[in-house]
Parts: sequence; C-alpha cells; structure tokens
Amino acid sequence: LRSTSEMIRRKRDGGELDREEIRAFLAGVVSRSVPDYQTAAMLMAIYFRGMAEEELAEFTAAMIDSGDRLDITTPTPKVDKHSTGGVGDKVSICLAPLVAACGVTVPMMSGRGLGHTGGTLDKLESIPGFRTSLSPAEFAATVRSCGAVIAGQSERIVPADKILYALRDTTATVASIPLISSSIMSKKLAEGLDALVLDIKVGSGAFMETVDRARELARSMARIGESHGTRVRAYLTRMDQPLGFEVGNANEIEEAITLLRGKGPPDLLQLVKVLGSAMLAEAGIEDGPTRLENAIQSGSGLARLERLIEAQGGDPSVVEQPDTLPRAAHSRRLRADREGYVVSIQAKEIGLAAMGLGAGRQTVDDAIDHSAGITLSAKVGDAVSYGDLLATLRFNASRNVETAAARVAAAFRIEAVAPHPWPLILDEIG
Amino acid sequence: LRSTSEMIRRKRDGGELDREEIRAFLAGVVSRSVPDYQTAAMLMAIYFRGMAEEELAEFTAAMIDSGDRLDITTPTPKVDKHSTGGVGDKVSICLAPLVAACGVTVPMMSGRGLGHTGGTLDKLESIPGFRTSLSPAEFAATVRSCGAVIAGQSERIVPADKILYALRDTTATVASIPLISSSIMSKKLAEGLDALVLDIKVGSGAFMETVDRARELARSMARIGESHGTRVRAYLTRMDQPLGFEVGNANEIEEAITLLRGKGPPDLLQLVKVLGSAMLAEAGIEDGPTRLENAIQSGSGLARLERLIEAQGGDPSVVEQPDTLPRAAHSRRLRADREGYVVSIQAKEIGLAAMGLGAGRQTVDDAIDHSAGITLSAKVGDAVSYGDLLATLRFNASRNVETAAARVAAAFRIEAVAPHPWPLILDEIG
Repeated sequence: LRSTSEMIRRKRDGGELDREEIRAFLAGVVSRSVPDYQTAAMLMAIYFRGMAEEELAEFTAAMIDSGDRLDITTPTPKVDKHSTGGVGDKVSICLAPLVAACGVTVPMMSGRGLGHTGGTLDKLESIPGFRTSLSPAEFAATVRSCGAVIAGQSERIVPADKILYALRDTTATVASIPLISSSIMSKKLAEGLDALVLDIKVGSGAFMETVDRARELARSMARIGESHGTRVRAYLTRMDQPLGFEVGNANEIEEAITLLRGKGPPDLLQLVKVLGSAMLAEAGIEDGPTRLENAIQSGSGLARLERLIEAQGGDPSVVEQPDTLPRAAHSRRLRADREGYVVSIQAKEIGLAAMGLGAGRQTVDDAIDHSAGITLSAKVGDAVSYGDLLATLRFNASRNVETAAARVAAAFRIEAVAPHPWPLILDEIG
Repeated sequence: LRSTSEMIRRKRDGGELDREEIRAFLAGVVSRSVPDYQTAAMLMAIYFRGMAEEELAEFTAAMIDSGDRLDITTPTPKVDKHSTGGVGDKVSICLAPLVAACGVTVPMMSGRGLGHTGGTLDKLESIPGFRTSLSPAEFAATVRSCGAVIAGQSERIVPADKILYALRDTTATVASIPLISSSIMSKKLAEGLDALVLDIKVGSGAFMETVDRARELARSMARIGESHGTRVRAYLTRMDQPLGFEVGNANEIEEAITLLRGKGPPDLLQLVKVLGSAMLAEAGIEDGPTRLENAIQSGSGLARLERLIEAQGGDPSVVEQPDTLPRAAHSRRLRADREGYVVSIQAKEIGLAAMGLGAGRQTVDDAIDHSAGITLSAKVGDAVSYGDLLATLRFNASRNVETAAARVAAAFRIEAVAPHPWPLILDEIG
C-alpha cells in the first residue's frame, strides 16, 4: 500500500488509485490520521486530474462506507429527487407530497441554503414547530406514515463528506465534477433508494454555468448510480431567472401550497410535473403527468403535505391559513423605470439580494430570518409599462435594504424587443 | 485584496497573483493565520499552473522579506555556489577554501543530506569539534578571518521556506520548478551575494532526471537572480554515477583533502575547476583555471581549509592526519563477477546503500554515522577483470549490510563493450 504522499503524487501525475488505496485514504481522512493539508493537496490534484470511472465508483462506495446507511423497508419503491441548488427552488416541497400521494415512497434528505441559493430545510423551518432534524427511527416512522419525509442528513451518513466538503469550501476545490458527483451520490445512495431523479441547474444562477459542464456532471452521477445498481435520471434545467415568483423562506412555502392548490406559477408547475413524472416512471408508473394533475386537482397532494407537516411536528394549519407563517414588518416596492419586455432577471443577484435581507446565509453559522424575501411581479418575457411593479422586498428593521434594492433593480433587464423563448428543460440524461 | 480561497481559485485557474496578494499570502503562512490545508492547496495549484516570471520574482522577494538578510561587508566580492544535490558531491568542501585562497569571499550556507543525497554539513561534522551552527556574528567573523565559511542556515533566514518545504515534502509538491527555484534563490539572495554559481545535477541520481527540466530550472533561477540584481551562472552537470570515489561523510572529507593535495579524482577535479573558475570570473578574475591549479599545487587551498576548520571549532589536524577522522569498525568488499567495462553505476542506488549503512537519513530526525560509507574502486568506463575490487562498504555493528551490498552490486553494470563517453558538464546557462 502506498503512503499518503505517494498516493497524492500518483493522482497528481494522472494515475488512478485502487480500491485499497482509496479506502485507506478515506479511512485516514475520517480518523484524522491523514492531516488536512494532505487531504487538501489530494483534492486539488483530483480537481486537475479528475477520476476514472471505476475509481470514482470506488471512491463513492468508500464514502458511503464511512458511515451508516438507511435501510427502511417500504411497500412501494423508494425514489428521491436531488437538485444542485438554485434561486426560488421550492420543487421538493411540492414534489414529495405529490409523488407520495401518487403511491411512491419519497425518503428525502435535503440541505440548507448557502450564498445565493436557498435550502429546502430552511424553508420548511418557516412553519412553526417543523422539525428537520429527525432520529433514524423518526425518519423511518414518517416515511411509513406519510409515504414521504423531508429531513436533514444524519451526522452518521457519509461523515467523510462533511470533512471533505469543509476543506473544499476553503481550498477552491468545490467545482470538480468527480468531487461534486461523489459527494451528492454517496449521500443519496446511502438512503437505499431504488431510483434517483436529478435536477441539474444550468445558467447564471447555478453552480454549473454551462450546459456542457452540467451534462458532464449528470453523466458522472448516472454512471456512479449505475455502478451501485441504482437507476439515475437527470434533467438539465434552466436557472437564469428565479423559479416561480417567490424567493425566500416563508413566502416560498406559501407558493408551494399555492401550487398544490392548482394555482402555481407555470415554470414551477412544469418542473414539478417533469421531475415528478420521472420519479413515478422510475417506480413503474407511466401515466405520471395525469396522476400528478389529479393529485393537484383532488387536493390529495395538499392533504399529504398537511400530514407530513404534522408528522414532523409542524403546525398543519399553515396549509389552510398561510398567514400563520411569519411575515416581515416592512416592504419596499420596485417599479419599472421604462416600458418594454423583461429580457432577463439575474437569478444569482436576486438570491444575493434575498440573502442581504436576511433570507439566506453568507457563512454556515449565520441565522436565517424566515420572513424576509423577495416577491417578483414580472418574469422573463413579460411586457411591462413604466411604473409597473417588478418586485417587492420583504424585510425587518435594521437590514440594509438599499443595497438589496439596488441589486434587484440591476438584476432586471428591460428592453424594447421581446426575448427569444428558451425552454426550461434543456436535456434529459439516463 | 482577495481572500485566501479566492487567491487559490485564481492560481488554480491559471491566473497570476499580484505583489500585494503574494505578500498577504506568505505573511499568513508565516503567522500561521493561513491554515496549512489552504497552503497545501495553493502549492498544488502552483505545481499545476506554474508562475509567471514577474510573479515568481515577487514571490521570491516576499520569501526573502519573511526573515532576516545577511549583510556582511567584505573587501572582495561575495560569491556562493549551490548544488541541487547528488551522491558523493564534496565539491563545496574543496571549492570554498580554494576560491577564498584565490581572493574571492565565499559566505556559504549549506544543507543536510536526505534520502539518497548527502549534505555538506553532515560531512563537515565528521571532523571532531566542527560547528556548522554559527551565530550571525560568528558567521561574519569567520568570513572575515578566512574569506570563507560553510555553515547551516540560520532559523531567521527565509522562515517562510521552512514552512513551505515541510508541507511540500508531504503533499507531493516538491518537484515544481517555481517552488524549487524560489526556495533556493530566496535563501541564496538573503546572503547578500554579488553572484551565484549553480550546479544543477541531471540524471538518475539527481532530482531533475532530464536535461530539459534541469535547463528550465536553471533559467528560472537565473531570471530570479537577474530581477534581484544578482548575477547567476548555472551549469548542468551529470549525476548518473557518484562524483569521485567516496560516498559517505568522513571518507568524503578525506577525498576533499586529497583533492586539495593535488591527487583528487579527475571528475571531481574537473567540476571543482569549472565551478571555481565561474565563481572567480563573476568576481572579475578571468584566469580562474590557472589560479585554482596554483592554489592546489602551492597548498594555499589546503591551508585555507585548515584555517576554516579551526575557525569553526574543528580539529585542524585532520588535514595532516586524516586518520583522526572516525573510522568504521567493519568493511565488506564487492568484486566483479565478470570481465568487461563498467558501463554504469546507478548513483541513486549507491546513495541509498550508503544511507542503509548509516551514512544518510531516511527522515530528518535520523542520526548519521559519520564513519559509514562506500568507497568505489572502479568508475564508468573502467575495464575490470573477474575478481577485481568494485567497491568497499564501511559500516559499524548491527547494520543490515546484506541489503546494502545487494544494492551496490546491482548498481554496477558491466558489459563487454566500453560505454560511449558522455561529458560531465552538459550545459552552461547565464
């Protein structure tokens, strides 16, 4: 077996690490016998050299084996959805209850927001009493009683990833396809899924700014899934403007409820249907679009969300009375300063403005103001007249709203000619 | 000013760091406010991306400014020689007194051996009482009284290099031309030299295994010297077989004394004359070869070594009575098992065998047995008959001599046809 520095040298020179070496390295990372500086050097070498297909499958397997696996027996197939993160992305909150209402189990482990992107757990915690930190027994019980659960990842699932992620964040090694795909897939495969649907965001508001890189990431994750016997279907979806009208936390929960009432914004509804149909198809249900539409029209999706909220300790009355959700004390309206068409709304800038109002975190230790956020009143392609409302900023006292308002104003581009429509779904892989 | 992780990202993406960023980064390295894992990631990014010419000059300047500079006023120009490390390389011990005897000041800071290469300081410490750790005042006093000094580097010279070097050693980032050249040049430029002569070793026993890489390193160091106003002349010299006949410590001192008596082995003598003439030429003395030869024939070089040994606390009687040097208790002779010509003697293998006998260190904390070593009795090109002596291993009890003997035997290749002669000096740069 090579020493750690010999393994770094091998990877640096474009060689492959074998199964035993990968396991020894990750065991050392978790036991802290491999010092952080060697791990950082290895991560940078992987950044430059990548990983071969089999090597990456072994690396992911060793990541999974660094911790516990979920092993929940359910009567119906277990399918999860993962998104690489965007702005206004409340798809999981719509999708888990809808897909569960259509007869497929959704054991969803979600994350928190960081930087310009929001996190599903933060959004759910807007609901009074809602608990996202569940014991393995509570997680399993909720899956069995509701057919779905949305919770944070246990500390004992893939502990190697926690250490690697913290190092990647400070060593400029986040944007590496093998490191991203093994990080995501190790956590998802530890859930013991039958299939996984991926929503890979592309564009100015996403981590992957080009379609080629996003496609490469999708393929990498699909191959890892395949080597572990888990079906993966990936969609490349556009993240240039925010999804839906609401960006924040409580306001996004409200928009998710609106969608489950059949009144959701068209882009959000389209994405929920595409991803939901894929989840159902992976479980052998081919008439997904019809079933999902029925679950919305009949209210069975909304009823399932109500059950899920109650099962996770939240106040289910928010579903009928959304004004139970926290509300910001102040608002500020931004209006069009010219006539024309909205040709772009920079998602990243809107996300950063919402963060500035308190809706997101700059560092992992920041607290979230669940009532803060931004409501868009126009989306790309809409015609606006001078003075029309573009967006409303919601915030509490002591926030520097001027910077956020300037950011939002600058994020909107209005021109005389309507933009060429660009599809929300760019590609499907797997 | 960018954050450390933004600087790593910039370097990772092939960008250049500016003067202020480089200074902030190295200041953080020295104050330990930049954690080792970020430093390691930066080193690996530099390994892959290199450094632009001006960036490397700034990096070297900031390395120098991390510590003290020597500032010794001398009546004659100050010129030093640095070798990238080889096997049997006792050139410095011959060169410093010879060049000083020819009227040029040699304030030499040397290193210790590691792995298969020996170190000048270790060799000198074979001499009873010899001190290589001098205070700045002692260093300056020896330079003034002897015209030369050979000592270890003060802790206060380029402290940034000590931290970077320790990290490079464990993170597979040693073999980077900008990191090697800034490490060497920062220490040499801090000596306040007028000129520097470099001996870049090339071949199986050297860190640079190809002429192209060695030439690139030489050019990089010459450019750094130029940007700091210090003349640099570099020689690429062959390090395939050991230099001279002796490999070890005390036995190498004895061979250096032999050379100063006019009876040195031809390859060692040639290198001493080439490098010594270059040092003299940089100080404006053009008839170097003649002067050096006179200093050998007249004994003035040997007398200067005697003075230097005495000034540094050593027993000067070793010069007249080399048997004052430590002697190993045991020896083992290796003989030719066939007739023919010696076509190669793998320097690295001989170095590793000597290390195995106790003459070198595997890790920086190992102790040295100054009396252990290897004496070659044949060199490349020599004709040997069956049973002729090839090498003598010298060692003390409890050493595993079998492994070393097998290594030395395997290092010799004897064939029927004489090898094509290859010059010792491969190229001159600057």
